[in-house]
Amino acid sequence: MTKENIFDIAHLAHVELYSPKLEESVEFFREMLGMSEIARQGKSVYMRAYEDHYHNTLILTEHHEAGLGHLSLRATSAQALERRVAQIEKMGYGIGWIDGDVGHGRAYQFNSPDGHLMEVFWDVEYYQAPEDQKTPLLNRPQKRPNRGVPVRRIDHVNLLASETNKNVEFLEEALGFKVRERILAEDKTDIAAWLSVSNLVHDVAIMGDALGEKGRLHHLCYWYGYPQHLSDVSDLLIDSGYEIEVSPIKHGVSQAQCMYVMEPGGNRIELFGDSGYLIFDPDWKTIEWDVKGIDQAILWHGTQLPQEFFTYGTPIRSKELVEK
Amino acid sequence: MTKENIFDIAHLAHVELYSPKLEESVEFFREMLGMSEIARQGKSVYMRAYEDHYHNTLILTEHHEAGLGHLSLRATSAQALERRVAQIEKMGYGIGWIDGDVGHGRAYQFNSPDGHLMEVFWDVEYYQAPEDQKTPLLNRPQKRPNRGVPVRRIDHVNLLASETNKNVEFLEEALGFKVRERILAEDKTDIAAWLSVSNLVHDVAIMGDALGEKGRLHHLCYWYGYPQHLSDVSDLLIDSGYEIEVSPIKHGVSQAQCMYVMEPGGNRIELFGDSGYLIFDPDWKTIEWDVKGIDQAILWHGTQLPQEFFTYGTPIRSKELVEK
Amino acid sequence: MTKENIFDIAHLAHVELYSPKLEESVEFFREMLGMSEIARQGKSVYMRAYEDHYHNTLILTEHHEAGLGHLSLRATSAQALERRVAQIEKMGYGIGWIDGDVGHGRAYQFNSPDGHLMEVFWDVEYYQAPEDQKTPLLNRPQKRPNRGVPVRRIDHVNLLASETNKNVEFLEEALGFKVRERILAEDKTDIAAWLSVSNLVHDVAIMGDALGEKGRLHHLCYWYGYPQHLSDVSDLLIDSGYEIEVSPIKHGVSQAQCMYVMEPGGNRIELFGDSGYLIFDPDWKTIEWDVKGIDQAILWHGTQLPQEFFTYGTPIRSKELVEK
Amino acid sequence: MTKENIFDIAHLAHVELYSPKLEESVEFFREMLGMSEIARQGKSVYMRAYEDHYHNTLILTEHHEAGLGHLSLRATSAQALERRVAQIEKMGYGIGWIDGDVGHGRAYQFNSPDGHLMEVFWDVEYYQAPEDQKTPLLNRPQKRPNRGVPVRRIDHVNLLASETNKNVEFLEEALGFKVRERILAEDKTDIAAWLSVSNLVHDVAIMGDALGEKGRLHHLCYWYGYPQHLSDVSDLLIDSGYEIEVSPIKHGVSQAQCMYVMEPGGNRIELFGDSGYLIFDPDWKTIEWDVKGIDQAILWHGTQLPQEFFTYGTPIRSKELVEK
Repeated sequence: MTKENIFDIAHLAHVELYSPKLEESVEFFREMLGMSEIARQGKSVYMRAYEDHYHNTLILTEHHEAGLGHLSLRATSAQALERRVAQIEKMGYGIGWIDGDVGHGRAYQFNSPDGHLMEVFWDVEYYQAPEDQKTPLLNRPQKRPNRGVPVRRIDHVNLLASETNKNVEFLEEALGFKVRERILAEDKTDIAAWLSVSNLVHDVAIMGDALGEKGRLHHLCYWYGYPQHLSDVSDLLIDSGYEIEVSPIKHGVSQAQCMYVMEPGGNRIELFGDSGYLIFDPDWKTIEWDVKGIDQAILWHGTQLPQEFFTYGTPIRSKELVEK
Repeated sequence: MTKENIFDIAHLAHVELYSPKLEESVEFFREMLGMSEIARQGKSVYMRAYEDHYHNTLILTEHHEAGLGHLSLRATSAQALERRVAQIEKMGYGIGWIDGDVGHGRAYQFNSPDGHLMEVFWDVEYYQAPEDQKTPLLNRPQKRPNRGVPVRRIDHVNLLASETNKNVEFLEEALGFKVRERILAEDKTDIAAWLSVSNLVHDVAIMGDALGEKGRLHHLCYWYGYPQHLSDVSDLLIDSGYEIEVSPIKHGVSQAQCMYVMEPGGNRIELFGDSGYLIFDPDWKTIEWDVKGIDQAILWHGTQLPQEFFTYGTPIRSKELVEK
Repeated sequence: MTKENIFDIAHLAHVELYSPKLEESVEFFREMLGMSEIARQGKSVYMRAYEDHYHNTLILTEHHEAGLGHLSLRATSAQALERRVAQIEKMGYGIGWIDGDVGHGRAYQFNSPDGHLMEVFWDVEYYQAPEDQKTPLLNRPQKRPNRGVPVRRIDHVNLLASETNKNVEFLEEALGFKVRERILAEDKTDIAAWLSVSNLVHDVAIMGDALGEKGRLHHLCYWYGYPQHLSDVSDLLIDSGYEIEVSPIKHGVSQAQCMYVMEPGGNRIELFGDSGYLIFDPDWKTIEWDVKGIDQAILWHGTQLPQEFFTYGTPIRSKELVEK
Repeated sequence: MTKENIFDIAHLAHVELYSPKLEESVEFFREMLGMSEIARQGKSVYMRAYEDHYHNTLILTEHHEAGLGHLSLRATSAQALERRVAQIEKMGYGIGWIDGDVGHGRAYQFNSPDGHLMEVFWDVEYYQAPEDQKTPLLNRPQKRPNRGVPVRRIDHVNLLASETNKNVEFLEEALGFKVRERILAEDKTDIAAWLSVSNLVHDVAIMGDALGEKGRLHHLCYWYGYPQHLSDVSDLLIDSGYEIEVSPIKHGVSQAQCMYVMEPGGNRIELFGDSGYLIFDPDWKTIEWDVKGIDQAILWHGTQLPQEFFTYGTPIRSKELVEK
């Protein structure tokens, strides 16, 4: 009999982004994407989308440059948490336990091979809507905000890595992620890989860093679920003076209708306009795109991505600025 | 430490519907919903939607009356299959192994407490598109059909039961389903419950049978993912002379934008027009709707459901015809 | 040669609604429908949608009961205005000239046969956006508001009449309206008629008043153009405690995807979610629905309208309250 | 008093396209866009979309190279036809009367200053659906086809011209078109202009030919009215091997959500996915985009158009092939 899947990680719980322009970043997520500020502590602001069930899914932290603070995964149980920690320690990537943060209990920190800071935890605090934010739609934790074109929930994070395959294998072996789709170079190494522990095509993606840098962020994605909202938020963003990097397109990989915009701190934010497709097969064979199919992997509908889409990440590195 | 979730069932793999008008039923699914006939054997026709990855997800079988033939679940591994069979046998609901069917290997059959025939299996056959049906969109198993308003994949099945709670508890204990939402009567028993093993709000739902009958079907649901397609298929259905029971509405439960239509055999078919919401929290607290909130549970947007929605099921029973 | 069409009326320019709860009505149009308050004068508040090009399209006037204040049509030229005034006077429905109102110059007032107050004018004031409301989308007079689910422009008005045909003929003969669709009773009189001077199916509709009252309003309609916004605004309205009378449906007449909601003053407001169809044929043969087709005329997609949809109008009359 | 508008032309009635691959062109419009072949005569095939009310709106004629055969306008009355013919003759652009064609009666032919063949007529034949194509939706001339992603009606035609302004002025003076939007070069001449006689932003557009050629076609546009259909038809086109030139975008001019695809004969076809905006103001001030705003005029949402969009037209000219 074959090896069974690992079901110890449930999903991407939250992401911390660094911003050199904290208040402008907060304003972007609040006024454009309709997210709510839930708490402040130290140099960090804690935010959530209106269908996020936990206390927060986005932490914005003041920092001298943009980039990923950390990403946080929730285990499927207290026991699962212990199992994953043991495995991470065994693989030599562990850092150690922290007491917790605003919105969750003790968490175990570790690094990806490329140095992205990650954590995994079990105890979580749920968002409690104040009376005037409660909705009769009981499966929605609060009213739909009457501000911005409000995103519904966190979707996934996309990381740049100096060595793609090494980071992909780490997610598989340490955490039980499954590679759902990948783009292969001629030498069969990954140009990019999309991995998930859930029915989504990806909770985390890893793409090769064109600059060869370590530990950078390509983008964080929030979810709408309806294509119309991409058009609506585009109007709002343009009128408000934000830079849309990629207007609504459709990727072949994941079948996402989506768009990309830079938040004021410099981090790239993806907005996901439909449900793409979901994976229910427990024995899913990774979809492999090769050099021949790469154009349709990247753009199923859509004309052309700007060159910077393939080089720009945060922290911003001088090499690419010179290139531009 | 609390008990861990069971991850042994992956999803709803296929459903068999009985039809007293087999060829008319096949035509409905092929011409209206764009599904494909893949095989015939005995009195059965095997069909699939264009984003279903397995050989088939719908079996239409000639029978003297409409209703559920059986529903079929896929285990998450060969080992998981054995574990579930042991548990079902222990609970006394087992029937026994069959050698398999068109599209899958050996399967274990059992009954729900209400007598709905179910099975669970591991070995599966994947759909292989003929050359002229292959698409460059590699995560899609075949081209989008140029016929009907094609549904993308099987979504869920909704069963009527004479004793709701007993059947809900069976799905929880025997198979590891989690109750995502429920509507409670004043005595705290379930009027209806929505259960899943995946990130969907429901792979299977159980509703109390208003006629007190055993083992009936309320509906089978296929998925579009885009609200526009409900409007498109409504045009097609009306022009083709089919009966739309419920035109596009939005349920509070599951946040589904959906509609209902009777296939020619008499079974109610739901079409799901968006992604509703997904559940990632491994410790999800069941959403409980009570009598006060029931109207919005049933219809979040939408005016009124016809009375038969609450009584009609298959097999059709004389009591309700008299009521009508 | 046949008689030529009259091209003297361009479109419905604005509508005045009476409200016994003026500030609540203003809040509804501003916070739910994203309209802007442009001016106040006397007991009236002047408002506009963000793609209305004139100064205002809605006047809300404090009054002891809800209903139509007046509706206002713009002529296609100064000469066309004079021609229409001459014709109205000749037909005996004229009242006389007024000097103008906030946003337009001199206007000629008249009554419909049923007593609805109407006016026609030529000189108009265009909306001038303040600097912070200007958008680079030059064909849009201001930014899309970041508030409510903003309607784009005024669409049409629907009047109840004690004698349908007499009012329809008045619009044809006095103003050059063409009857685009009608529902005929068995005696061939109009149950309802939809008339336009533009490519829309209706700028004005006339429906028989089930209570036999004179001069009442059925509804005023604002336009979105996208079906998704009906779903979005439904969320907002329900969460904000407003009464949705009819959730998103599709009429056969005009092919409108639309919904109906009561504004706090009691007037029924329609929201139009797509473009329906347009009429370009200068020799259009009126679409005639008879008793057999009436169900699909009223609801092409959609289950059932509440009974009050066919009786409720403003001013509210005691007869129907008793009926309820 | 100012001069009154001319209301003598109602709309664009049909367009003839030349195709060097007639049967492949017919197949494209029938299988991809769901249009119907209504008649054949000589080297021409007559087609229509399912909400076109006349006998046909597209004539495909076999020819040694692609391009515009002619475009045809319907007058608003028999008298209006005579008035326009007199004016065209007076301006020296007339050719003469023809007896008519399949689907319409006598017509007057003339050339644009750039040599595009045009005609205007009054007597028209309406489409009569066979019994099995009749729909209970009486304002729709036939059932929605169950084939392709069916376009609803003809929308507009876009012409390339060697001298933009001269052709724009001809449409204004000879036919009563109004310039709704224009893009101005620094010397205030038109780079492009969008003109209409209806409430649409354009029935006809004129763009400067980058190659300096005379009488070429940029594109013919058919209308969907729903953005989703652009995504649906993109799937179908890619899977069927057609070349999408521009995937779904949003123009600033006319606010169109649209896309462009080459039909097999080589002509560019636009598909219009929403209703854009409509113009009701009889005294509309032309929207003027200058060099500063040109990017947003061309693309409001959308990343970049391919270079050939600005040079390619039919007939195809060697100069641009060399450029490519």
